[in-house]
Amino acid sequence: MSSDPVRRGRLTGGRPADVAAFLSSIEADRWIADADVRVDIAHLLMLDHQGIIERDASSAVMVALLEMYEHGVPETVFDDEYEDVHAGIEACLIAKSGMDKGGRLHMGRSRNDEVATCIRIRLRSELLTHLTKLAALRAALLEQAGNHTETVMPGFTHLQHAQPTTLGHYLLAYEQALSRDFERLTDAYIRVNRSPLGAAAFASTGYPIDREMTAELLGFPDLMLNTMDAVSARDFVIETASACTILMSTLSRLAEEIVLWSTSFVRFVTLDDAYCSTSSIMPQKKNPDTAEIMRGKSGAVAGAFIAAFTAVKGLPMSYNRDLQDVTPSLWRAVSESGACISIATGIISTATFHPDRMREEAGRGFSTATELADVLVREYGLPFRAAHNIIGRAIRSGEITLSVLEAAARELSDISLIERGLTGERILEALDVDVSVRMRSAPGGPAPETVKKALSMRTLALEEDVIWVQSEQKRLQNAEDTMIKDARKLVDES
Amino acid sequence: MSSDPVRRGRLTGGRPADVAAFLSSIEADRWIADADVRVDIAHLLMLDHQGIIERDASSAVMVALLEMYEHGVPETVFDDEYEDVHAGIEACLIAKSGMDKGGRLHMGRSRNDEVATCIRIRLRSELLTHLTKLAALRAALLEQAGNHTETVMPGFTHLQHAQPTTLGHYLLAYEQALSRDFERLTDAYIRVNRSPLGAAAFASTGYPIDREMTAELLGFPDLMLNTMDAVSARDFVIETASACTILMSTLSRLAEEIVLWSTSFVRFVTLDDAYCSTSSIMPQKKNPDTAEIMRGKSGAVAGAFIAAFTAVKGLPMSYNRDLQDVTPSLWRAVSESGACISIATGIISTATFHPDRMREEAGRGFSTATELADVLVREYGLPFRAAHNIIGRAIRSGEITLSVLEAAARELSDISLIERGLTGERILEALDVDVSVRMRSAPGGPAPETVKKALSMRTLALEEDVIWVQSEQKRLQNAEDTMIKDARKLVDES
Amino acid sequence: MSSDPVRRGRLTGGRPADVAAFLSSIEADRWIADADVRVDIAHLLMLDHQGIIERDASSAVMVALLEMYEHGVPETVFDDEYEDVHAGIEACLIAKSGMDKGGRLHMGRSRNDEVATCIRIRLRSELLTHLTKLAALRAALLEQAGNHTETVMPGFTHLQHAQPTTLGHYLLAYEQALSRDFERLTDAYIRVNRSPLGAAAFASTGYPIDREMTAELLGFPDLMLNTMDAVSARDFVIETASACTILMSTLSRLAEEIVLWSTSFVRFVTLDDAYCSTSSIMPQKKNPDTAEIMRGKSGAVAGAFIAAFTAVKGLPMSYNRDLQDVTPSLWRAVSESGACISIATGIISTATFHPDRMREEAGRGFSTATELADVLVREYGLPFRAAHNIIGRAIRSGEITLSVLEAAARELSDISLIERGLTGERILEALDVDVSVRMRSAPGGPAPETVKKALSMRTLALEEDVIWVQSEQKRLQNAEDTMIKDARKLVDES
Amino acid sequence: MSSDPVRRGRLTGGRPADVAAFLSSIEADRWIADADVRVDIAHLLMLDHQGIIERDASSAVMVALLEMYEHGVPETVFDDEYEDVHAGIEACLIAKSGMDKGGRLHMGRSRNDEVATCIRIRLRSELLTHLTKLAALRAALLEQAGNHTETVMPGFTHLQHAQPTTLGHYLLAYEQALSRDFERLTDAYIRVNRSPLGAAAFASTGYPIDREMTAELLGFPDLMLNTMDAVSARDFVIETASACTILMSTLSRLAEEIVLWSTSFVRFVTLDDAYCSTSSIMPQKKNPDTAEIMRGKSGAVAGAFIAAFTAVKGLPMSYNRDLQDVTPSLWRAVSESGACISIATGIISTATFHPDRMREEAGRGFSTATELADVLVREYGLPFRAAHNIIGRAIRSGEITLSVLEAAARELSDISLIERGLTGERILEALDVDVSVRMRSAPGGPAPETVKKALSMRTLALEEDVIWVQSEQKRLQNAEDTMIKDARKLVDES
Repeated sequence: MSSDPVRRGRLTGGRPADVAAFLSSIEADRWIADADVRVDIAHLLMLDHQGIIERDASSAVMVALLEMYEHGVPETVFDDEYEDVHAGIEACLIAKSGMDKGGRLHMGRSRNDEVATCIRIRLRSELLTHLTKLAALRAALLEQAGNHTETVMPGFTHLQHAQPTTLGHYLLAYEQALSRDFERLTDAYIRVNRSPLGAAAFASTGYPIDREMTAELLGFPDLMLNTMDAVSARDFVIETASACTILMSTLSRLAEEIVLWSTSFVRFVTLDDAYCSTSSIMPQKKNPDTAEIMRGKSGAVAGAFIAAFTAVKGLPMSYNRDLQDVTPSLWRAVSESGACISIATGIISTATFHPDRMREEAGRGFSTATELADVLVREYGLPFRAAHNIIGRAIRSGEITLSVLEAAARELSDISLIERGLTGERILEALDVDVSVRMRSAPGGPAPETVKKALSMRTLALEEDVIWVQSEQKRLQNAEDTMIKDARKLVDES
Repeated sequence: MSSDPVRRGRLTGGRPADVAAFLSSIEADRWIADADVRVDIAHLLMLDHQGIIERDASSAVMVALLEMYEHGVPETVFDDEYEDVHAGIEACLIAKSGMDKGGRLHMGRSRNDEVATCIRIRLRSELLTHLTKLAALRAALLEQAGNHTETVMPGFTHLQHAQPTTLGHYLLAYEQALSRDFERLTDAYIRVNRSPLGAAAFASTGYPIDREMTAELLGFPDLMLNTMDAVSARDFVIETASACTILMSTLSRLAEEIVLWSTSFVRFVTLDDAYCSTSSIMPQKKNPDTAEIMRGKSGAVAGAFIAAFTAVKGLPMSYNRDLQDVTPSLWRAVSESGACISIATGIISTATFHPDRMREEAGRGFSTATELADVLVREYGLPFRAAHNIIGRAIRSGEITLSVLEAAARELSDISLIERGLTGERILEALDVDVSVRMRSAPGGPAPETVKKALSMRTLALEEDVIWVQSEQKRLQNAEDTMIKDARKLVDES
Repeated sequence: MSSDPVRRGRLTGGRPADVAAFLSSIEADRWIADADVRVDIAHLLMLDHQGIIERDASSAVMVALLEMYEHGVPETVFDDEYEDVHAGIEACLIAKSGMDKGGRLHMGRSRNDEVATCIRIRLRSELLTHLTKLAALRAALLEQAGNHTETVMPGFTHLQHAQPTTLGHYLLAYEQALSRDFERLTDAYIRVNRSPLGAAAFASTGYPIDREMTAELLGFPDLMLNTMDAVSARDFVIETASACTILMSTLSRLAEEIVLWSTSFVRFVTLDDAYCSTSSIMPQKKNPDTAEIMRGKSGAVAGAFIAAFTAVKGLPMSYNRDLQDVTPSLWRAVSESGACISIATGIISTATFHPDRMREEAGRGFSTATELADVLVREYGLPFRAAHNIIGRAIRSGEITLSVLEAAARELSDISLIERGLTGERILEALDVDVSVRMRSAPGGPAPETVKKALSMRTLALEEDVIWVQSEQKRLQNAEDTMIKDARKLVDES
Repeated sequence: MSSDPVRRGRLTGGRPADVAAFLSSIEADRWIADADVRVDIAHLLMLDHQGIIERDASSAVMVALLEMYEHGVPETVFDDEYEDVHAGIEACLIAKSGMDKGGRLHMGRSRNDEVATCIRIRLRSELLTHLTKLAALRAALLEQAGNHTETVMPGFTHLQHAQPTTLGHYLLAYEQALSRDFERLTDAYIRVNRSPLGAAAFASTGYPIDREMTAELLGFPDLMLNTMDAVSARDFVIETASACTILMSTLSRLAEEIVLWSTSFVRFVTLDDAYCSTSSIMPQKKNPDTAEIMRGKSGAVAGAFIAAFTAVKGLPMSYNRDLQDVTPSLWRAVSESGACISIATGIISTATFHPDRMREEAGRGFSTATELADVLVREYGLPFRAAHNIIGRAIRSGEITLSVLEAAARELSDISLIERGLTGERILEALDVDVSVRMRSAPGGPAPETVKKALSMRTLALEEDVIWVQSEQKRLQNAEDTMIKDARKLVDES
């Protein structure tokens, strides 16, 4: 039978073990145990400051809280006789400082605002870690791009050889895509970083609490103002899961490239052995397993999004216990996607690219035919669509020579390219891969000089992003340090 | 650095710990460790029978396997230096019986067919457990329905009072819906219950193996014939997750009823305290938390479906490591939905329904107006649509009396109901709740006698379902016992 | 202002056009308009047979219904002044046969059971069409497999060259996977094919209706017995969407192969031009667009599943209007997946495979190293794991020769392969691709003779499947013909 | 056989009609046809300005484009012989101005950047419309909240009566939640509003194009810089679908409240008839159908998110045709959620709330017991947890009187409340609903004065939001007007 301190008044009888396990969030609550101690400290400082609790009680409870802060939450708190970590910590505080003192902490609040605050505190920190990892991945891509601004390779559409590009250009595409994931996670962070504390069950409280004070102590720049919204909102969870899902869609694409590029067909890259596995029966195999798992985990994260969204769908105000099951999905989305960012960074920074193989493939599949069409337009006056059709017809025959082009032009447009001055040499030059790449110098294009310019811009942008994350981490750390100092002072002054 | 026995030939260098953790499935593999021992035993019996392995080797390895079978897989197997449980068990067997003997077990197979077989064995057993639990839930519903064949209550459409019905009828609706979930899980079971063993990596093997023999030893009635399909198919996982998701959609509806019915507004049911929680600050609260969590967990299971589906999407043949991440989603779907079935059974079988409150509400909201419309049609010759419109117009005024009806009939259809013989008494009789319910005796309807008839049919259907599950469980147990006897004989004969 | 016949009694005022459009299902109802006429006919025959309606009324309405049956539902029915097609058809019948007669059809039923019946009738027919299309795709795969039982090619795991196989074997893997999709759609069909008619709003009716009679007239072998379940169940929709989603996961894999195989890197297949597109600016491009769209449409179908599931989640009994929005998702799942099956059939049956390229690649990447390991085990007595490690080590050096193997064996296992009699010739023979394939003759394996055997079995299985679909289609047609004959007789006899 | 101008060079033969329909995006392209004309105009102005096209050609094509701009895209463009609207419009331009001129427009771009630009232009405008509608919904909520700052009602947790609150507070919770949806849609808008034009197929072009010029002409403040990323990114689609999905989760909650509040049990609100339907057989029914459909449509939008995400998962760079199937999901998400916002606004602004019923329920279910517990703590010195347990125990008996409390206090804590001075009058005062609500005046709480303060803040915030949307709409309109003036000037100058 449960000794959960919350439960004993209203309800009779014990619970079967399976029901207790079903109700308890205690395992998932390991994520928020440390945050809960900090929320307790902030709440207690405020109760004390507002004169809601007497000093001898606040001091006694604070001593117990600071011990947990310094040495960690004791394992007994996670006994699944408790419905959640809040009940576990409260039981622990009562055990240490007595019911008469420990039983006073929960004035002017409820588990509803408490848990929402804890989740936001932990998630805030996880998001900054995500951003730090994502910055490292972007840096790895920029570094490899910097090594390969001149590495000519084929670009693909529909996985068909399309036009030549450079590896630097290719890698910058991923860095830029990931920078938008960085933006989205930052946007989510801003909405996570608001304090629901003081909302109590949903109707705030009759005690003269100071919500701004606890928000400031905990480093929240804003309140979740409306108290009913504060406890029942989980849009910040769904949004975070969504931002992680979209990030995983980007990473799943990168993973697909890595898998393709390390096949025997393509051989554009060799992965470091650390990121590969072999087969239990095929001794020759070296498989890009980490990339495959990363690709697969896009499912786990999307699944977490659906789990969180579905649980919230159709719930009336305010708090409903369904919300308890939303949180594990959040941590799954965060931990799975976080692991993938790190693995991607490792794969990219240790990968060996093969410029020779890339160059070998760059000119295959008539990849410079577009350039030739453009030449026919610019220098020989054909309308673009006509030039396009003539070359397409020529390619059906398997080669692009003067005579084949001439025949196609006569057939389709009833004109003579030879009469217009086209020569075999001009064709060859137009089909040259390096010429083609160098010409593509519009902003954001693949020409080496253009890539170098983009690289500088992206490096600067990344630096700014890193500075923002670091300053935000510092701000949170400062808030925490200040609060602990205040808490120690309260104890010392007693 | 890893001492994984599979890895050491082909690849150089160690792995960073985070990469090893990312690659390893060892935690999720706890689900299949026991199954893996049985697969090893079956495979070894077959290798021995086919003369692929020599008796002294097969005997030595079998001794080690039987020890694991009897005393459980040792904890060392789950060290995350191993990529998976197969490598862990192989390392353990080699340690016990030497490389020269233990290193021979993996002939003629691969981890690809091995893991697929293990998942199917464990899942097969989980599905039978699901069916057993589901039968218990259906039995609980039938029992409560049996108690309430005469309990008149309002039925709802759009959550509006619609027409009177009986609680027995209401509960039978859920039993019948759940019987289709039972069917779907059974259909999934049949597709799970096929043996991929012997497919090896995907191309079977040059050894003269006997796939039918291992299938029979492991209780599989059929083969996954094509060996490439055998290792790369995960449709059985997505299908199981889907069947669990659809089941959860049914349970989420039942949960919603329970939540609604236990509000202060409705008060149709009082839940046992064991299935409720109270509030940390509102001492009067008794909340239906188990029902809410059950409703919320529909999200977790749907999320598992999406996770599994997404991981498989777009993968070429044959095995890809993405598939590793499919399995944890399967276990999540199975364990979450399984817990919900049990909780629902507990809620229903311990619930106290309140016939008085139900009767009180049964006649509210003009719930028998349809019956009155039918009377106007049957006895006073109005077209149905006209009768419907006349009564609807009357209700706008807030009451149904002879004079109000007469006015509506004149206005809308220019006829006199009084002239046709309608009286106030006939109106009152038509509006009587009990009369209305008793008349609704079409098959499957709410009339008490009809409900009793349906109850008998459903009880019989449930009995048949239970018998099938039990016979299937027995069949599997017999196969396992026979195999273990053969294994012991092999050891004894050596 | 609406002239919807259902609406005018109870509610006042008109509706803004956007509200009317929001409420109306009329566009989606085009899918079920014909089914609705058949449901009306069956219901009317039953009302007449049971004496609930008088013959002159039933005859007049039946004349109007038969006209719609023969010439189609008039376009006026789809005016969005009607909330749905049932209201539209009822208005049309009243217009034709007068309120006094046309207004009597709706006795003893409701739109709730009516729409559920219509959806099941249309879906039943769609599912049989799906099965027919799927049989055609399976036939196309079997035919191409039959052409290529001897076509040696590389098989892949992790998209790495793994072991040689045959194209016949490869294609049979897809046929077998699709045969399970066929099974699932068949299972769904069985649950769809049950009659909810007579459930009325949810509580059946006080009229002496005959539910078995209407079920038989409409070709339903079973009732949805419980009338509350009958109108509120949409699990058959979610299940169908799920079966289509799983099918799409299979098709997305096939699509991925086709995209990969038609790249310049792989060149295993050339698609017919009809299934390709070119680029608007790259004249050389021939892209496998149909396969890509098919791959992408797996998303649309999975999305339809989520849409249907989410709408149903947490709804209490019985009918709620949310269910209206479930149906368009069903039709989307059905039509998108149906189009993909046909396209896949076209792609496969018109594709040109390239055996020369396949053979060229079959031996690359040490794909027969497993066979060599097996030889070391079988003929030279090495434990499998030791042989595996020795060859893996050898491959790191880039070639497998006697001297390299010898060095690896000495280093890893301290044995001499040369002393055990291994020769260079034996190595070469073991590495031979054709030998390797021919040896893999376990059931379901890639050896040509084994593939031929599997082909015969699969051909027989497909024939049985086709016979079942055809007999079911015939059964439904017979039921319809009989019902129409009865309807005409009713009119003639009047 | 197709006369698609893009197709005729490279590919032979016609296409079966079903394949053409499968490939064509022409129906979905209706969404972007107008945007495409504007993109063509911007591109042509730039080609002319850069001297890439000669003036007589640019002038001729511009005449045709301006005609389409002014009179709309002709219906012939949507013939499904065209793969897409770009081919349709190009064919139309060639028909009007001849191949020699019309065939020159497509220089320096591709359909890949063209379609991405068109989608962003249309979506940008849709998002501003969404924001405008959302502002109207928020205004409706604020207005009703303003009418009901003093309307006392029960608040709920777990759908149980919890504590009294005010209707103004309740409605403000939804306004605040929706303001975060507003933020998310704004964030999405910013990422949508970047120009991919000039990326061509993915490698930009050898023509000396000016990407900044076209961006400015089209009102884009930024470029999608990297050209490979520019054409292959669809994260903006998934993000928009996600923002709409999260919005729908909020609306589904509001819908649930409306459904609950209009039941016969609750009767807190009466909806305007325009937003309700009746039953086809139950004449008394008035159902909140619009709210139910809104709740159900959360599924359609979540499904669109999954559809878009799934299609993108695992695609390598750069453009793949799978992306074509992403766009219809986007439009579905946008149109379904947009309709729901408008309906919600209509429901709220025409709803009649019932303060009497709300007050009647406000004190039920011991909803002020928390206040009493607080009094025991504040005035009689009990620890909070003890007070909570004592009151909980008292409630088990069904009433809260002095004697019951005294007994509970003695039993649980061995203290006498009477000795501490508690009286029956003090209990009654503490349980008073109005007192309880007035005390809850922490920021964001339910006290009337607090609600009024919040209302002012939220009204100001909304005004700022509206100003931003309007200024952005004006900015876009100005850009368009300027571009058209330039286009006309080009024609006039020729």
